[in-house]
Amino acid sequence: MDEFAPFTSKLNRPIESKNVEFQRLGRLKHIINAAQLTPELLQTLCRTADTIRRLAKHRSGNDALRNLLSDKRAMLYFTQPSTRTFLSFMAACQILGLTCNEVRDPKTSSEVKRESRMDSIRMFSSYFDIIIMRSLAKDFAECCAYLMNRLEEQEKRSVPVINAGSGSDEHPTQALLDYYTIDRSFDFDERTDGVESRLPDLKADYPDLISGVGHKTYAFCGDIGRGRTVRSLARVLSQFPGTSMFFVSPDHEALKLDNDLRQELIRQGVSVQEFDTLEADVNGRPLIEQIDCLYMTRIQREHNSESTESELQQLDLEPFRLTVDRVNRVKSYAPILHPFPRDSVVGEIPVEVDSDPRAMYFRQARNGMWVRAALLVHLFDVADRLHEAEVGLLRS
Amino acid sequence: MDEFAPFTSKLNRPIESKNVEFQRLGRLKHIINAAQLTPELLQTLCRTADTIRRLAKHRSGNDALRNLLSDKRAMLYFTQPSTRTFLSFMAACQILGLTCNEVRDPKTSSEVKRESRMDSIRMFSSYFDIIIMRSLAKDFAECCAYLMNRLEEQEKRSVPVINAGSGSDEHPTQALLDYYTIDRSFDFDERTDGVESRLPDLKADYPDLISGVGHKTYAFCGDIGRGRTVRSLARVLSQFPGTSMFFVSPDHEALKLDNDLRQELIRQGVSVQEFDTLEADVNGRPLIEQIDCLYMTRIQREHNSESTESELQQLDLEPFRLTVDRVNRVKSYAPILHPFPRDSVVGEIPVEVDSDPRAMYFRQARNGMWVRAALLVHLFDVADRLHEAEVGLLRS
Amino acid sequence: MDEFAPFTSKLNRPIESKNVEFQRLGRLKHIINAAQLTPELLQTLCRTADTIRRLAKHRSGNDALRNLLSDKRAMLYFTQPSTRTFLSFMAACQILGLTCNEVRDPKTSSEVKRESRMDSIRMFSSYFDIIIMRSLAKDFAECCAYLMNRLEEQEKRSVPVINAGSGSDEHPTQALLDYYTIDRSFDFDERTDGVESRLPDLKADYPDLISGVGHKTYAFCGDIGRGRTVRSLARVLSQFPGTSMFFVSPDHEALKLDNDLRQELIRQGVSVQEFDTLEADVNGRPLIEQIDCLYMTRIQREHNSESTESELQQLDLEPFRLTVDRVNRVKSYAPILHPFPRDSVVGEIPVEVDSDPRAMYFRQARNGMWVRAALLVHLFDVADRLHEAEVGLLRS
Repeated sequence: MDEFAPFTSKLNRPIESKNVEFQRLGRLKHIINAAQLTPELLQTLCRTADTIRRLAKHRSGNDALRNLLSDKRAMLYFTQPSTRTFLSFMAACQILGLTCNEVRDPKTSSEVKRESRMDSIRMFSSYFDIIIMRSLAKDFAECCAYLMNRLEEQEKRSVPVINAGSGSDEHPTQALLDYYTIDRSFDFDERTDGVESRLPDLKADYPDLISGVGHKTYAFCGDIGRGRTVRSLARVLSQFPGTSMFFVSPDHEALKLDNDLRQELIRQGVSVQEFDTLEADVNGRPLIEQIDCLYMTRIQREHNSESTESELQQLDLEPFRLTVDRVNRVKSYAPILHPFPRDSVVGEIPVEVDSDPRAMYFRQARNGMWVRAALLVHLFDVADRLHEAEVGLLRS
Repeated sequence: MDEFAPFTSKLNRPIESKNVEFQRLGRLKHIINAAQLTPELLQTLCRTADTIRRLAKHRSGNDALRNLLSDKRAMLYFTQPSTRTFLSFMAACQILGLTCNEVRDPKTSSEVKRESRMDSIRMFSSYFDIIIMRSLAKDFAECCAYLMNRLEEQEKRSVPVINAGSGSDEHPTQALLDYYTIDRSFDFDERTDGVESRLPDLKADYPDLISGVGHKTYAFCGDIGRGRTVRSLARVLSQFPGTSMFFVSPDHEALKLDNDLRQELIRQGVSVQEFDTLEADVNGRPLIEQIDCLYMTRIQREHNSESTESELQQLDLEPFRLTVDRVNRVKSYAPILHPFPRDSVVGEIPVEVDSDPRAMYFRQARNGMWVRAALLVHLFDVADRLHEAEVGLLRS
Repeated sequence: MDEFAPFTSKLNRPIESKNVEFQRLGRLKHIINAAQLTPELLQTLCRTADTIRRLAKHRSGNDALRNLLSDKRAMLYFTQPSTRTFLSFMAACQILGLTCNEVRDPKTSSEVKRESRMDSIRMFSSYFDIIIMRSLAKDFAECCAYLMNRLEEQEKRSVPVINAGSGSDEHPTQALLDYYTIDRSFDFDERTDGVESRLPDLKADYPDLISGVGHKTYAFCGDIGRGRTVRSLARVLSQFPGTSMFFVSPDHEALKLDNDLRQELIRQGVSVQEFDTLEADVNGRPLIEQIDCLYMTRIQREHNSESTESELQQLDLEPFRLTVDRVNRVKSYAPILHPFPRDSVVGEIPVEVDSDPRAMYFRQARNGMWVRAALLVHLFDVADRLHEAEVGLLRS
């Protein structure tokens, strides 16, 4: 697209060169891709999210949170339809007192008037203090970050950009919430009255079990080829030592692990294996019984061509569906995630599974709210004030 | 619908058995149907509404109100289009500091992705603290209340559900605001400077007049058969002693009082009579001159089949229209209500009537805001804090 | 339209007779047309805007601002699509703590139910404290102001009305922000560290230059005939002494200065000249080099008939386009404005110009936010509290 022309030369660079431009003194200026989520940053954001949810348990904590960013205004620019991510960001903003504004119709009046999208973005940055955007256009969020950087160089008004889903490519904040859910599962803390570790009990059954995200076996099941959430999360997890990944998908070109991602993960030292059923034999035992975490996905239908759609209709999806029996055979501590929505017709996770303690997908959604709030705290650089608020609350 | 399956067995029970599940220790957990509006609860909500409107007269009162629920977030899930009810709930939330979120498009992205509506509701309950919903699907709000109750039993996150209009069946908060308007009219208090009763003066002309909602004659005029507001209000009023009701509608099957409601009202001890003109002779005098309250409605056109529509086109609607002359013959104290919108083509209430002191329909709309705020105060159980705020304000 | 009938007799009066009804004791009750923007009022609003932007630079100033109207609720009723004006008003409201509500779909449910638009407006005034409206219907905003005035006479609830763009006729708040941008440009103050005047330096090159909006030459370029922003701004500027205006447009009936406006400006004492290129010879030198301010516009396409559209397609628009070369020949202090959006296909202002210090169009957008906030402060009569806030802040 012509309007991206000033920045196209920046798009085909190695991701490391890009990402230095999206940060400043070790803190993010923009979040554009999942590769920005280093283990250190993940640790920071997860602990900030923990603080926020602790504060949110009390009325006075909520008041302190809502005061943090009450002088800021956010633009949620979601031209790709999305209910869940949108509402999650809305709630995250509201927790921190950020006032929300939205543009969701892809055919806004300005486009009718042939305004370039870069002009729209700069308009948003005139009125608002952060732009949270989701778009079908692959490089749009990235180009917006470059535009903001250029304005900053010219000593003009510039605001942070959050990529809330861009094309079929990246969805870094989904990876962030998935990671946060896994991180909390693998600390094995029980949080009913006070905090108590379940690890000693679990070791009776699983003697080799250790806490933490590393040294675990992750299974991704369903639409591996097109699920940007799988791609983003796998990249994030690949940074941790001793990681194994099983990719379980139907034998169809569109749905299988693509070669680029496979090579990238292997280069990172991940042990990668591919299967075509949750019951596949792995060293003599069914896969479903040997994993530490199961990440289910929906077979995406909305972007299929007619021929692909009819091919997918032919597939037997039973091997990629959970059942109560299968869930019962999953390790007792292993979290089951799903980025949602799930497909109520295919039923990759039937509602009977919802009450199982391993089913984390509703908690995962709520985690998204907390960790997105943490991301906002980070981008606006108010973590210090957040921690002061907590200290103040503990004293009183 | 399959997604309601876990709860369908609960739908065909007597309303009393249902309603015990929608309350807890005498306080509402959810509001689903007008039968929950007992005289005691109506009294509580109306007095709470009075307190809210008194506080809202002053800047410091407004500040106190806005502080009441400022740590809460509401979801307004309105897939059936509605401007008036929607905005009234928005305003009610805003008065109390509740942050509003909305989903209004019936074709949300998640439905495109074949998400079940129950999953959508549970997502909303992850992010928000109350769900206010309006839907064309008859039992949807009720099933959502059951889902929330089940989650509560499982010690999971659960939030209150408000039915803001469900199918052609129930619209309990409209009945609530209609009742509040009638309740205020029949206390006969003048509220210009201080509060003074008009009753002694009125008794000169109407010696038998007493204050209160009971012992009155109510006329409902227009679309009796399909107006869910008529149905809900009539049920609410039927709980009061000495109530007479006149139903005035064209002689068309779709528009007349249906048999179920007639029987129900009679069983409750209401004196029920049906007429086909506002000028009908009742004991030797025109109906319009003998009523204590007139509830006008619009002939609904939006759900008509083509054949019904053409039949309705043939009807002479003059007998169901107000005129200045007719209004002048209504008792001087009798409130004229209309749930609005009114039909500007049919003109069941022409604008000339608007300046008559009996015309309560604009005040009725504003009452909706106050009494919906009262309902939120009740559901979130902050009536005590509201009354403390008023006491604090009176002292200062 | 029939629904406007009660007020149509008021529409065909001289604008002075109208405008006395839109004010009270020298303060605006409603803002309906640009003729209400007298030099005194412009001065008041611009200085209020300056105060607001100074306060907004600091966290405590922002808190004070957000407290000013936090007990008020606004309705943004934008049935004519608009992103920029809408968001600008949203941001202005949010700066002052006003809660925003919106109705944007021209086909609201109430219209489906044949509600008159005047009933919709009165409903809005029941729930909200101000109505900010943009509509394609020519006299709608004006009639709403009359409705509110009538309600006030009847001692009923009445709220201020802001015309945020009405038909092709008036857009007074755009004129206000254009004026504010020009006013700030022509005070020649540098606002980097403290405030310092650039005027002495400029006088070296331009000995006759004086500060202020009067005694300047303004060029309007592009779609003169249909741009309501040109019409409104020209009227506002015509009130200042020594004003010259150059109108530069293609030689097409739809795009040229219309006769009514030409006569009106001349009556006001403005020197008016018309040209068909930015390079036109004016007293021996190109026009572009002789102007103090350049107001660019987009050739509007959205309301063209098919025949007009094809005629416009034939036009050579080069003479009405800025280039870097042309900008370099504009006087060094002369602000270049554009009401935006600009047309990215026609390119009346190419992006290369954006970094020129004369390019004011992005600042102009942000100015719109400040001066609309100032207008809200004026309409709600809280300027005193604003100034107290500033004094309080300076002390602390």
